[in-house]
Amino acid sequence: MTTVTASPVAAVEEALERIDARDPEIRAFVHVDAAGARRHAAAIERRGRERGGPLFGYTIGVKDLIDTGDMPTSYGSPIFAGHRPDRDAHVVRRIRQAGAVVVGKTVTTEFATFDPPPTRNPWDPACTPGGSSSGSAAAVAAGMVRAALGTQTAGSVLRPASYCGAVGFMPSPGWIGRTGIFECARSLDRVGFLARTVDDLVPLLAATAGVDPGDPASIRRPRARPRPALAPDRLRVGVLAPLLDRATPAMAATVRGTGERLAAHGADVRSTQPSETFEAGFAALHTLMRAEMAAVHEVLYRNHRGSYGPRIASIIDAGRRIRASEYISAQETRRRFRAELDGLFDDVDVLLAPAAVGAAERSHETVGDPVMNIPATLAGLPALALPAELSDDGLPLGVQLIGRRDDDHRLLDVARWLEDVVDFRSMPPLARAG
Amino acid sequence: MTTVTASPVAAVEEALERIDARDPEIRAFVHVDAAGARRHAAAIERRGRERGGPLFGYTIGVKDLIDTGDMPTSYGSPIFAGHRPDRDAHVVRRIRQAGAVVVGKTVTTEFATFDPPPTRNPWDPACTPGGSSSGSAAAVAAGMVRAALGTQTAGSVLRPASYCGAVGFMPSPGWIGRTGIFECARSLDRVGFLARTVDDLVPLLAATAGVDPGDPASIRRPRARPRPALAPDRLRVGVLAPLLDRATPAMAATVRGTGERLAAHGADVRSTQPSETFEAGFAALHTLMRAEMAAVHEVLYRNHRGSYGPRIASIIDAGRRIRASEYISAQETRRRFRAELDGLFDDVDVLLAPAAVGAAERSHETVGDPVMNIPATLAGLPALALPAELSDDGLPLGVQLIGRRDDDHRLLDVARWLEDVVDFRSMPPLARAG
Repeated sequence: MTTVTASPVAAVEEALERIDARDPEIRAFVHVDAAGARRHAAAIERRGRERGGPLFGYTIGVKDLIDTGDMPTSYGSPIFAGHRPDRDAHVVRRIRQAGAVVVGKTVTTEFATFDPPPTRNPWDPACTPGGSSSGSAAAVAAGMVRAALGTQTAGSVLRPASYCGAVGFMPSPGWIGRTGIFECARSLDRVGFLARTVDDLVPLLAATAGVDPGDPASIRRPRARPRPALAPDRLRVGVLAPLLDRATPAMAATVRGTGERLAAHGADVRSTQPSETFEAGFAALHTLMRAEMAAVHEVLYRNHRGSYGPRIASIIDAGRRIRASEYISAQETRRRFRAELDGLFDDVDVLLAPAAVGAAERSHETVGDPVMNIPATLAGLPALALPAELSDDGLPLGVQLIGRRDDDHRLLDVARWLEDVVDFRSMPPLARAG
Repeated sequence: MTTVTASPVAAVEEALERIDARDPEIRAFVHVDAAGARRHAAAIERRGRERGGPLFGYTIGVKDLIDTGDMPTSYGSPIFAGHRPDRDAHVVRRIRQAGAVVVGKTVTTEFATFDPPPTRNPWDPACTPGGSSSGSAAAVAAGMVRAALGTQTAGSVLRPASYCGAVGFMPSPGWIGRTGIFECARSLDRVGFLARTVDDLVPLLAATAGVDPGDPASIRRPRARPRPALAPDRLRVGVLAPLLDRATPAMAATVRGTGERLAAHGADVRSTQPSETFEAGFAALHTLMRAEMAAVHEVLYRNHRGSYGPRIASIIDAGRRIRASEYISAQETRRRFRAELDGLFDDVDVLLAPAAVGAAERSHETVGDPVMNIPATLAGLPALALPAELSDDGLPLGVQLIGRRDDDHRLLDVARWLEDVVDFRSMPPLARAG
């Protein structure tokens, strides 16, 4: 397992050993740059801990939807096999400036959608790791890297995190610039992180949040709204009731059990029931996503239709049929949905929900259903998946925390406390994956 | 002519007399509330100049697209004949709080589009006043009210201002909240003002700019970026060359002549030539406008199709056929267009262009072409039309000033100076209209 270490060189050697041992089975990586990682690690080590940056000692896997100037980037598509971007994506440049070493590129589903990837779930190779940040979640969960970059348009960070027993975090919209990342659906796309602990997310966020001149949505600096840390017995938690109804019994029990444990520590835990707009939001997200994908792929799809997988092709075909007025109406639904979810935070500090419908499916014909992640994505709220339980089959079940927009630091505070309460890492079978 | 006066009561009497004398021919008003105006004027007069508010003594016409709680509001459509809104629109509430007296509702074209209204141009009743803020421009130009509220989606404030020899001003997006105004195309709609002098615009902007809780686009407070006033000999003016090519010879000569007069006063006047994105912008605006209108009218049009005029019906029909991916691609063009126009301000302080293609058409089959107003509208920049010359037929020709986004105060400063340089009011035939 990659552990906190003062030595980038040692961290990289550990990562490479672990990749050698596990990746032939798990297939989390599409490209590993051992020589480059060793060279960068040595350079950072020479700078020393003081000057090496806040991500000194971090080994990172970068989702292959995200450009790297020194490694191929194929966006999960045969059309881009061997493609060499000119330069690092904004977020890659930021983590490297902060001292992280990029070890390699992790598997993404084709153009970040739903065609299953070759990656296996580290907890059980018969199970999907989820998607689309499949390789990032599997690599972190299997201890091959300390953290990984992912992207989320519907549920592509939080769902694989839940399936693989990793922590997944999607900051508020606009916090992390998206220049150099292949667009999936621009109005929904966000950068996210996968890590093994909440503590490891904090310097990642600090190193990457800020203005990206190439991404108009990131122009605004994240509002610094420092608030006093909430004592657990002052915390108000709303359990998002309509999502429990969509979960498997084991997942619903995990979320309820987590709520009870928080209540036992003094938190005020209540059930939260949004109105009808909430249900309309799910369809709106699919309309927005399909239409925006059809627009992004317009020319490429016309010229390379035969090189598209069946699931993404059917999404694009559906997207091409959507009328502008349906799209505009979905945008209007999103506005109402956002106002409604914002309103819930008048009464609670954080929302609690399943991070996925259930444990990872025992199948490689699917990457699972992102439905649980749609509310935070559509409403533009920060969200985090945290492993909380093991199913009877020994597979991880993650809970989701959703925070107030631009209140990401409080969300991380609450997640750190929840992590202690849940104490997932002490569960006996964990050694099997990690 | 309505003049600056300390007495709201006297101003209202002057306005009502002027309306009695001229409106039977001009038909600028759909509704005049003489009793209500007298009552409000008396109440404000009792408060006195000190406590009456910054719009003390202002008489105002409100475009009939904008709700008034005490007068009918029909949005120019027979479907809404006799409609009585519950309350004033946000901007109406703001001007009333500031001491203005609303005298009546001014003619809008049907749902603020292109079907010609009954209104006549005060300079020549055979000519169109332009649209869609037809009545607001005509009422101000004919001296029936001191100022009027309008709205602009393509060129609905600046073009009628130019046709009628009024000053028209469209502040930066988000400065004036739009709650209580019938949507035309939400991503383009803005509130604007018509007045006889630039000085009269300043308190109108001050009284109305700010947060409107019902309009998400107005959440952000206009940035106060006070800058030192520019001395005329430091002013850099860019003449938007591609728009001159679309203007009539008389209008092109007016804009060139205005540039020469500014240069004679020491300004640095140069020709500005944007790239190809500029041309793509015009088509993008039409795509956005048609698609958004089709979405707004979806249900109403299905139920009342026979009550729509031919021009708006054809826009909605075209809008219904637009695919979501075309709409998204038009949004992308707008983003590039906006970046390109923003970039022009690296070298200039203000752009100079025609405010309309030429003088008002001698026809009531058209309300004219908004093409000259599309750049500022699409790019989200503040813009102002100022009467500058008279055509050989004795019709006004307006020039347009376009400012940097959120730099509205500087735009007004430059316009005030230009107003002195041009000295339109001293032109001999002016008495005829005003």
